[in-house]
Amino acid sequence: MWHIKEEGFDINKIAHYGNKFLIGHLNLGVRGTLDEFGKAEMVACHLPFIYDQVGQGWREPVNAFNPLYTRLYQGSSSLDVFKSKIISHEQILDISAGLYTRKTLFDDEGVEVLITSKRFICASGKRRIFGVYQIETNQDISLTLKTGIDLNVWDLHGPHLEDVIKEVDGSLYVFGKTHEKGQIISTAKKVTNSHNFKASYQEDDQKMLEVYQFDAKAKEIYQFYQYAYIGVDETKAVIEAEMNDMVTLGFNQAYVDQKNIWRSMWDDADVEIVGDDFAQLALRYSIYHLLILSPRLSKNSSIPARGISGQTYKGAIFWDTEIFMLPFYLNTDLNSAKSIIKYRISGLKGAKEKAKSYGYQGAFYAWESQENGFDACTDYNVTDVFTNRPVRTYFKDKQVHISGDIVYAIKSYIDRTKDDEILMEGALELILEVARFYLSYGRYNLLLDRFEILDVLGPDEYHERVSNNAFTNKLVSMVFETVIQYEKQFKDDKNMFFYNLVKKIDFYKELSLIKDLVHKVYLKEVDKDHLIEQFDGYNRLKDISKDELLKQKLHPNEYLGGSGLAGDTKIIKQADVITMLYLFKNDYEKEIHEKNFHYYEPLTEHGSSLSSSMYALIACHIGKPEYAYPLFMKSATIDITGESKTYAGKIYIGGTHPAASGGAYMTAIYGFAGLKIGDILELEPRLPESFKKMSFKIKHLGKQYQINLTKDHYDMKEI
Amino acid sequence: MWHIKEEGFDINKIAHYGNKFLIGHLNLGVRGTLDEFGKAEMVACHLPFIYDQVGQGWREPVNAFNPLYTRLYQGSSSLDVFKSKIISHEQILDISAGLYTRKTLFDDEGVEVLITSKRFICASGKRRIFGVYQIETNQDISLTLKTGIDLNVWDLHGPHLEDVIKEVDGSLYVFGKTHEKGQIISTAKKVTNSHNFKASYQEDDQKMLEVYQFDAKAKEIYQFYQYAYIGVDETKAVIEAEMNDMVTLGFNQAYVDQKNIWRSMWDDADVEIVGDDFAQLALRYSIYHLLILSPRLSKNSSIPARGISGQTYKGAIFWDTEIFMLPFYLNTDLNSAKSIIKYRISGLKGAKEKAKSYGYQGAFYAWESQENGFDACTDYNVTDVFTNRPVRTYFKDKQVHISGDIVYAIKSYIDRTKDDEILMEGALELILEVARFYLSYGRYNLLLDRFEILDVLGPDEYHERVSNNAFTNKLVSMVFETVIQYEKQFKDDKNMFFYNLVKKIDFYKELSLIKDLVHKVYLKEVDKDHLIEQFDGYNRLKDISKDELLKQKLHPNEYLGGSGLAGDTKIIKQADVITMLYLFKNDYEKEIHEKNFHYYEPLTEHGSSLSSSMYALIACHIGKPEYAYPLFMKSATIDITGESKTYAGKIYIGGTHPAASGGAYMTAIYGFAGLKIGDILELEPRLPESFKKMSFKIKHLGKQYQINLTKDHYDMKEI
Repeated sequence: MWHIKEEGFDINKIAHYGNKFLIGHLNLGVRGTLDEFGKAEMVACHLPFIYDQVGQGWREPVNAFNPLYTRLYQGSSSLDVFKSKIISHEQILDISAGLYTRKTLFDDEGVEVLITSKRFICASGKRRIFGVYQIETNQDISLTLKTGIDLNVWDLHGPHLEDVIKEVDGSLYVFGKTHEKGQIISTAKKVTNSHNFKASYQEDDQKMLEVYQFDAKAKEIYQFYQYAYIGVDETKAVIEAEMNDMVTLGFNQAYVDQKNIWRSMWDDADVEIVGDDFAQLALRYSIYHLLILSPRLSKNSSIPARGISGQTYKGAIFWDTEIFMLPFYLNTDLNSAKSIIKYRISGLKGAKEKAKSYGYQGAFYAWESQENGFDACTDYNVTDVFTNRPVRTYFKDKQVHISGDIVYAIKSYIDRTKDDEILMEGALELILEVARFYLSYGRYNLLLDRFEILDVLGPDEYHERVSNNAFTNKLVSMVFETVIQYEKQFKDDKNMFFYNLVKKIDFYKELSLIKDLVHKVYLKEVDKDHLIEQFDGYNRLKDISKDELLKQKLHPNEYLGGSGLAGDTKIIKQADVITMLYLFKNDYEKEIHEKNFHYYEPLTEHGSSLSSSMYALIACHIGKPEYAYPLFMKSATIDITGESKTYAGKIYIGGTHPAASGGAYMTAIYGFAGLKIGDILELEPRLPESFKKMSFKIKHLGKQYQINLTKDHYDMKEI
Repeated sequence: MWHIKEEGFDINKIAHYGNKFLIGHLNLGVRGTLDEFGKAEMVACHLPFIYDQVGQGWREPVNAFNPLYTRLYQGSSSLDVFKSKIISHEQILDISAGLYTRKTLFDDEGVEVLITSKRFICASGKRRIFGVYQIETNQDISLTLKTGIDLNVWDLHGPHLEDVIKEVDGSLYVFGKTHEKGQIISTAKKVTNSHNFKASYQEDDQKMLEVYQFDAKAKEIYQFYQYAYIGVDETKAVIEAEMNDMVTLGFNQAYVDQKNIWRSMWDDADVEIVGDDFAQLALRYSIYHLLILSPRLSKNSSIPARGISGQTYKGAIFWDTEIFMLPFYLNTDLNSAKSIIKYRISGLKGAKEKAKSYGYQGAFYAWESQENGFDACTDYNVTDVFTNRPVRTYFKDKQVHISGDIVYAIKSYIDRTKDDEILMEGALELILEVARFYLSYGRYNLLLDRFEILDVLGPDEYHERVSNNAFTNKLVSMVFETVIQYEKQFKDDKNMFFYNLVKKIDFYKELSLIKDLVHKVYLKEVDKDHLIEQFDGYNRLKDISKDELLKQKLHPNEYLGGSGLAGDTKIIKQADVITMLYLFKNDYEKEIHEKNFHYYEPLTEHGSSLSSSMYALIACHIGKPEYAYPLFMKSATIDITGESKTYAGKIYIGGTHPAASGGAYMTAIYGFAGLKIGDILELEPRLPESFKKMSFKIKHLGKQYQINLTKDHYDMKEI
């Protein structure tokens, strides 16, 4: 239950497997591509948070020069999955330790050549890649191995690295400079081998190559150890020292260390399922992604929406992190949780600038957040498939719930840790500035005596520019309540910090308005059928089934939102009212959850990976784990099956889906196990038919608990 | 200067000439098509205000069966502009009396046949059509004339007439029934002729025909008088009496009567221009259209945006009437002016229903108003040329300025007539309900202490769903001021009507809010460059020239608004800020007019016939008649040249442009002559280079004045 494996080679799955067999950590992602692959096969040594913009292209993180390029030749013919005869081919990811293995048995006119290549990225957080490329033949033959650095980098909006300098000095070195900030991105590589073969050096087609020519004996194993290091603004001396350190350590010892780090991570994070092996593997695979993405080693990093799998979505941080991933770290890894919060505190300046740029006050957080809260989102996030023109979208300027999502996350973090200090480290200022933003964005309805939030996008992005979105308004109400709550708390503690801050940021008028408005924020009514209208006028939209709608498509990738097919119908992209019900579960009676689940689920396209898990969670809440199970599996397997959208209009949106991974984890813990966080921890198991047992650990208020449960019983003990 | 004439036949101008040579009155329009034309050539005997809907088609006015169908044959060959050899062909409209003439000289293998056909519609307002079809040949030949009723009606969203009953009884009769209300629409026709030829009867291809066969002598004139009557819910006895009356009266006497009625209309309405014959003709032609459309004989009719030229725009009344046509009637014909106001009072119920349907209070007037204020506008007023899908447009639900336009019109009417009685006949209630609507549509900005109108379409329809449109907000402010003004007026008069009405319609809270808000409605600031931003965020839109924008078009008829090419640029469809400046001329200094004229004019596509005249008026106001002149001519000649859009996306929008006619009149009187209406009438002549003199009459406060002016002098005397 720890191995993801695929057999055979399928050219159509190259992009998908690149995501599926991803390894790395939050500073470096290496896609699960084959040694001999290049730019066309979407190889990437991806550097999250190293953002760069070229011309008018989107600002995105950089990919480094690829040090894993390796290709074997018999005579002049390359052993190549595209052209050679393959007897067997498999790729394996050992998620227990982040080890990628590739095994291919080639049949080159009767000569069988087995290539076994392994690699892992040092879990210490350094950008160290260890690999071994192993060759075995069934006959004596002459072979040529070319291994080195591929300078031809796959980019969506590149090329980002210019002024390239190559150096061969014991190791191979290449240095490039980003356009925008002039950051020096380097790749170093050194190869050792089991037979002390010497290499010649060759430059070829944008590659720096070491060339080994040798006569292989049948059945003998030839190993080429690969040590690579990616530097960011590091001197050659530093890099050289890293290389020496890696070579001295050696692949095998490094792998022993690797396993230890991973064992300790899994010890806190694993969720065991007995009775359903595929669910077990899928959930572990989801947790694997959350582990490689954990900002445990950073003080204020967060997690991009496509993780470390590539440049999609500009490598930016979305609300995905706060709402769909943070819950995992709150249970298992508080360093990561705190880092996620701190990242947003460091983005306050950017959020205030964004608000100001639109004429608002307070903190309007980035829809696609890069460093310092800079919003990388463009006004044209989709390309029209019919005219090839950019489509004006409103993610950046109207999806205002992001600011409230962040406040929700801060509250959750404090509720789970009692780490009130963070309020004084910037979180309270963040909260007040978000409240100020909502005061300036919202408007008062004089005849109806209520505060309304008009002209927004809710989570369901298909319906643009809607008013009084149930989800958004509820968050605004929560933000105002939070301000009042913390005012009281500081007052009760006789701590002047709150009022000093009010003075410092001139928040008097705002505080007085908030006190007046806190119970006047318009919350969409629950109607006589227990339904909550997603936004003003939703009920008047066209009734049409998902199937009917999709049948009207004229192009497979046409965008359904906005003025697209779904925009004037009740079909929604993703959970919206349902997400609100989950986040504010206790504010609504179970019957409301139930009725809204049954109403909205058939109307939901689940066109976002954020959707299924929310429905799964509510399904569990209303005691229907059988509804939840397929939705849970959809979330947990999204990067196993590759069944997700890879294009929005003409824009590539492929990559991994950590929010779905987080959603799968949430469904397991809060849905199936029914964990309830109150003054004490409680569980209400609602296991699917196939689950016999579940076991996991939870951190809460400074303690850790081991929890074991079956369908009708649970025990929890402090450890 | 009283004749519009075109020579030659051009198949591409059939639709245009149908509009250009239009005759009729507000109860019946007959397009300027040839006698032998049918449905394919857009023949129409158009019945404004007789609305009908078939299936899911648009609800539109009905066209009657065509009694003008007449075709001449020599032997079996038809004399036909499409196929026959034409020596000369002309169409003439005598605008002094609404007489249409067509003259065609055919050459049928050496035989010359001259057809001269005239027709007019009785200006008394009855649906009586008089015609004469005259034949002259240069050789003795045998001819066959077929004349009768064509039952194959041209419709945009028909067919509307069902259960058709035909009867031949002295005259030809045909009765059809509308789908929706079952109204009986009938056409009767009787033909007499100069030679007492007898006809046989024939039915042929959806036609009821009288067939005359005769031997024509060279140089002799054969006249066939045509008497036709269109009935709406009238019995055969009534129609028969009408027919007898018409035949007894005869074409020639009827035409004498016709000329008398028209002479009297022109006497009040004519504007004489000395020095520029084409401008004279174009302006008279504009006035001609306003005369045929005048609701002088009705108590509460208004004028459809395409007049009586066909079913375009659902035969509905738009703000065109109040803002662009009413000024003509206020100067020349107060019965018509009052009827236009009364029409809106009768639409209050529909406006309240419309507001309620969207969850608002008060009166939200129809964007496309049919009877009783019913809004015929659909949510999809354009078809996408690339996908053939309907495009969601926001004319109906967001173009809220219409309610304010009506209040503006009522105020203008009262200011010009002191007919305060109308306030007690429903106009005050209308005003209060419009104010209530704006209170419920607008929202209060708490941090900025101002009342805002968000999410609207202003006059410039290319920019959908904008906030704080300068034009709209100014109207809202004016509506609130008007409420306060009339409260004071009734109070000063010790007339309890105002407060009784407040009580009756429960307007207490609203009145109190209005007093608080009247000076807090957000009026877009005049910036340091004296410019007024059209709406919040307009200044951030893309800078692009009109030419550049139009170059990007991929389809000649693609819709530029909304998510089309212009939507995210500064290019606007029509005058918006400039219309506001015109309507509230005295509230803004001349420099503001000047700067905004020069800023917005190059950004304006003038894609609406409402645009040029507003720019022309402001150009005059800033003392630049040379800028105004071409814009004036564009408005005045729009239906002469036919240079206007006939398609929006895939939707036919052709027809006449009475708002442009009204705009041309306004430019002449308020622009070139510079008429200023205050306590006394004043003029500030700003005549274009080519104008030597202008003369016209004006009614004001119960008196009529004759005004004569030259470039530097004017005299005005009461008559």
